[in-house]
Amino acid sequence: MDQDFAAWRAALEALWTEGIPQAAALGAVIRRLDATGLELAAPLAPNRNHMGSAYGGSLQSLATLAGWGVALLASGSIGPHQILIRKAQMRFMAPVTTELLATARMPDPGVSAAFRTRLAERGHGRLEVGVDVRGHEGPVAARFYGEFIALDPGR
Amino acid sequence: MDQDFAAWRAALEALWTEGIPQAAALGAVIRRLDATGLELAAPLAPNRNHMGSAYGGSLQSLATLAGWGVALLASGSIGPHQILIRKAQMRFMAPVTTELLATARMPDPGVSAAFRTRLAERGHGRLEVGVDVRGHEGPVAARFYGEFIALDPGR
Repeated sequence: MDQDFAAWRAALEALWTEGIPQAAALGAVIRRLDATGLELAAPLAPNRNHMGSAYGGSLQSLATLAGWGVALLASGSIGPHQILIRKAQMRFMAPVTTELLATARMPDPGVSAAFRTRLAERGHGRLEVGVDVRGHEGPVAARFYGEFIALDPGR
Repeated sequence: MDQDFAAWRAALEALWTEGIPQAAALGAVIRRLDATGLELAAPLAPNRNHMGSAYGGSLQSLATLAGWGVALLASGSIGPHQILIRKAQMRFMAPVTTELLATARMPDPGVSAAFRTRLAERGHGRLEVGVDVRGHEGPVAARFYGEFIALDPGR
């Protein structure tokens, strides 16, 4: 299982490095990846606003990257399906004034299994992923919910 | 009035260039700024995903920048108050495969006036801003709603 997570980590990093320039623009790195979910970190400097806290657009973008990663993990494989975001909502409770941490929660195993089954049987599936954003060791500063769809273009 | 918009345009550009590195990371430029609202454009290349369309996090970030700009415009001045985002939601209907365009609508004059009055009288105000995102000459691909608050830290 740990080997699986190491492989997933390498796959996600390769995918973001090669295919999503904004991951580098945010300075996003994988801090943790295990059965509970995916935590991304990003430094404040490239994500600051003119008030010295984190820019709200960066918080949404980092949370989306984390949520998307978990949706791909929950789908069980890198492809041939694609994971697309369909809805996003975020509530901002407090400023982030240190590095940014976005923790996307792995859905319950039954929910992920239903997502994979539907994708296999019908060629599409839908998954909601929650992401908490906070500063270094701080309380939750923003909450994100993303609705992702998996779509097999060959089906 | 046109002079006012030219001054606002210069002020927003200076603020983003100096204070919000992600505006440059997105490649965001002001395409239009007038009484109806603010349109930002960004090239696809830095905002692409591994599927060749625009990354959802970029769409949220660009829409947030446009919405924030309109909230600042509606507040009537650059300061001393701050404009903060409190809630964001976005619905993604179609992929964007060309340059990204985010058009934030100026609220009705009465709504903006009430926002300014409340800020002047109580030191805080709240404003909702709608932003449409599309590709070059395409239909609306994503809709964003942001709830922004204006806060005078000296009050």
